[in-house]
Amino acid sequence: MSGPKTSEVADATKAGDSIDEALAAIRFDRDGLVPAVAQQHDTGEILMVAWMNRDAVRATLAEGRVCYWSRSRQRLWQKGETSGQIQWLRELRLDCDGDTVLLLVDQHGVACHTGRRNCFFRAWRGDGWQVIADPEIDPEALYQPRCAGPTAAVDTPYGSGSGPSCRR
Amino acid sequence: MSGPKTSEVADATKAGDSIDEALAAIRFDRDGLVPAVAQQHDTGEILMVAWMNRDAVRATLAEGRVCYWSRSRQRLWQKGETSGQIQWLRELRLDCDGDTVLLLVDQHGVACHTGRRNCFFRAWRGDGWQVIADPEIDPEALYQPRCAGPTAAVDTPYGSGSGPSCRR
Repeated sequence: MSGPKTSEVADATKAGDSIDEALAAIRFDRDGLVPAVAQQHDTGEILMVAWMNRDAVRATLAEGRVCYWSRSRQRLWQKGETSGQIQWLRELRLDCDGDTVLLLVDQHGVACHTGRRNCFFRAWRGDGWQVIADPEIDPEALYQPRCAGPTAAVDTPYGSGSGPSCRR
Repeated sequence: MSGPKTSEVADATKAGDSIDEALAAIRFDRDGLVPAVAQQHDTGEILMVAWMNRDAVRATLAEGRVCYWSRSRQRLWQKGETSGQIQWLRELRLDCDGDTVLLLVDQHGVACHTGRRNCFFRAWRGDGWQVIADPEIDPEALYQPRCAGPTAAVDTPYGSGSGPSCRR
């Protein structure tokens, strides 16, 4: 049996140190969270806003797939873990006072749990809220069970999932 | 002396009712705030993220100029009130669960207190934060006193201003 090569250990240590440096610049709030804006990298479309804690930022930078913190379910929530609607990270940016991150992403499919491409589909137009986008995917199809059993967590920020993470 | 015409009273009442309807759909957090993403309406550039309370949303919709709530100074903060870097509202949008607003704006000048066009000028590029934009305006020029006296509030989210609002 042989362990990892010295260079592999050094690389892993360097990557860990590097992410620590990224985290050090971010000002997490009293709950240990920071708001994260996800923007489609090539069109500029704002897809969604969610929250990240330190572990979510770490996982996102380490894996290149966006991971949030679900406030309602109080657990890490890898975007697309049940819906398949993955967000691939292109670049993470930080604002001037360090308390908001901007994620430039490549969104696979739709970002919104309603089946719409983005979550900002209600526009205030003077005398009422108007729905300005239709679903591209039936939300029921989006969240049909893909793992056996009744405990599969659903990929929404709203916490209707009841069980453990269901990655595949 | 004559009071307002009946039709004017009716219009004002209707406008007030209408904004109440807008506010009713927004889910403010335990501090009475909601994060607001400001995006340049025609280019898609994300300019900044700040916070709004009910009064800030009301003022923004009523006046067509973006008004935030400064958490550090605990007061309404009309964007550009001292810097002149006004954000004109084009449209206010709301996300699927009502807890984030998107402001499509026309930014006059620069959005960031550092003199940069937007606040997200730090990019994580693998082994460090890189500054990817230069100031377009000298921040000192941006915040040179334009009202007499030492109490002029500055137009930043960081609370270095010490006095009352200084609109002109």
